[in-house]
Amino acid sequence: VRIALDAMGGDNAPSDPVAGAVQAARELDLAVALVGPRDIVATELARHRANGLSIDVIDAPDVIAMGEHPVQAVRSRPNASMNVAIRLVRDGSADGFVSAGNTGAAMVAALFGLGRVKGVERPALATIFPTLKGHCLILDVGANADCRAEHLFQFAIMGESYARLVLGHPRPVVGLLSNGEEESKGNKLVQDAHPLLRQSSLNFAGNVEGKDIPRGLVDVVVCDGFVGNVLVKLAEGIGELTFSLMREEIGRSPVGVIGALLLRPALRRIRRRVDYQEYGGAPLLGVRGTVIVAHGRSGPRAIRSALRVARQAALAKLPEAFDFRHPSLDGLGSPAPTEAPLETAT
Amino acid sequence: VRIALDAMGGDNAPSDPVAGAVQAARELDLAVALVGPRDIVATELARHRANGLSIDVIDAPDVIAMGEHPVQAVRSRPNASMNVAIRLVRDGSADGFVSAGNTGAAMVAALFGLGRVKGVERPALATIFPTLKGHCLILDVGANADCRAEHLFQFAIMGESYARLVLGHPRPVVGLLSNGEEESKGNKLVQDAHPLLRQSSLNFAGNVEGKDIPRGLVDVVVCDGFVGNVLVKLAEGIGELTFSLMREEIGRSPVGVIGALLLRPALRRIRRRVDYQEYGGAPLLGVRGTVIVAHGRSGPRAIRSALRVARQAALAKLPEAFDFRHPSLDGLGSPAPTEAPLETAT
Repeated sequence: VRIALDAMGGDNAPSDPVAGAVQAARELDLAVALVGPRDIVATELARHRANGLSIDVIDAPDVIAMGEHPVQAVRSRPNASMNVAIRLVRDGSADGFVSAGNTGAAMVAALFGLGRVKGVERPALATIFPTLKGHCLILDVGANADCRAEHLFQFAIMGESYARLVLGHPRPVVGLLSNGEEESKGNKLVQDAHPLLRQSSLNFAGNVEGKDIPRGLVDVVVCDGFVGNVLVKLAEGIGELTFSLMREEIGRSPVGVIGALLLRPALRRIRRRVDYQEYGGAPLLGVRGTVIVAHGRSGPRAIRSALRVARQAALAKLPEAFDFRHPSLDGLGSPAPTEAPLETAT
Repeated sequence: VRIALDAMGGDNAPSDPVAGAVQAARELDLAVALVGPRDIVATELARHRANGLSIDVIDAPDVIAMGEHPVQAVRSRPNASMNVAIRLVRDGSADGFVSAGNTGAAMVAALFGLGRVKGVERPALATIFPTLKGHCLILDVGANADCRAEHLFQFAIMGESYARLVLGHPRPVVGLLSNGEEESKGNKLVQDAHPLLRQSSLNFAGNVEGKDIPRGLVDVVVCDGFVGNVLVKLAEGIGELTFSLMREEIGRSPVGVIGALLLRPALRRIRRRVDYQEYGGAPLLGVRGTVIVAHGRSGPRAIRSALRVARQAALAKLPEAFDFRHPSLDGLGSPAPTEAPLETAT
């Protein structure tokens, strides 16, 4: 398995992506194509003992920066690292793509370069969320701000396949995010989507509420990309708040500081259980190829995790595994003619 | 100031509401009308030393339970405690209403019994959310699952007034919840609402993301009731998850347990800073009267806080303070003819 890694993506590129690639190539059974300006990337790679590892550098002279407008940047710079890396996937010389760069641009580059899977109207970005029982998959978390019920059905199918084939849940339970458990609850979108999911072959648990996510009630949570984005970022903010409050309140007394020292191993274990770096980034599901978007702040360990996940997803041949058949929908009939630009997340 | 309290509302009614009423009447400058079946409530009240306190019992033979369908229950039982209490407000013999019972039913009873403020198409439920800098007000959190841009504008006006007149922010900063900070981000609703808020007289900070809420970037966060409900419940679930993980991981080693003991005062201070019991429930803004909906799990202290907040809100004469004028909207022209049933939250 060979994964194309955007060497210029992320807050600390190229050093963290290159370091993560070296770790991954050393510890996991995979090859990495580092894509970026040849000189810069080769110089960075030379700092590591990478002899004998399956890593090569693929030249891409241009770079797309974090703040750029996704569609414009992707269109105007065909030789940006993301575009070159995606072409490796399209041409079959790489089995997957990983980037910690501009999320919107990575999604657009993947959509334009690879196209959509048959039956998918809107690809979805999925993220892994820690729960009391382990973790669950939430999608969409930012690719599509406005959705229709059929989109949510397609997200459910893709999320279920990913949870089963990549995350290893034997029979994933799928929930529809709503403002109440009863079938009558929800906004119009959720009320329209509920019967579609209920009549499908999915292991559907019905509506779930926000608090059911951390409780681990279901393995896959389906929502539109606006709600998904807001909630994932809220969780990030709550994590920050918790640690800030602890630092502030604990620092107020020497006894507290001693207590915190004694608790350090436990706190470290908790952090590991909720740390995004372990989970390895968000898969973009519904494009024809394996695409993993990592957090902009990804360090080497997070990049390594993203490469590991990309490898697993590539081996699972996800796009071919999706089964969109539905008694009341022509799931496979949706045409995928034009390049409908994704509404993009940050 | 006299507040009508639904003595039968909440998981632990009538004992917690009555205990909270006694605390409030003793410690705060207010009178409480306890509304519920006279015998039950009087028996409960007799357990407290309430002599000399401004508490009286108003008979209401019926009760609306937690799981009941709001509109149906409110319509079919005019003598339920909620309906009787709301009539006290309508007739001017009480200045505000507090209930920890069925949230949807409390909102419906208030809307049907009091009607809407002129200029308000949809009343909104607002909740206080802890932040790094104190707290902020989020609305709507569950009264309206599907909204239009003008509704969000009205929420913003009501939230700003509440934050200024009741919470004491001199010039509250208002943010529009979105999936990105840029003005171009958002679902269709947010993109429509953004210019309305920008052109208004509000102190508008533009779009805010989920993570900006706990960071305390703004004092008032405006969103539709579906998103608001999901995020408030998610935060509740994350709080539970955090405490469960801590209990689990700390319990693994004796050193951890000792550390936790030393940290207890700090953890207690943190808990107090994020505890809903301090904040005293969610105001329903936009009905003609003061209405505070408290959490179903409210203990006596939370009920006391809710009564305190109801008193402040009643003194602020909020419904008269809302100013919906807008350069491009006929803010005061919206008619309020029919009883548009609230979509209700749990």
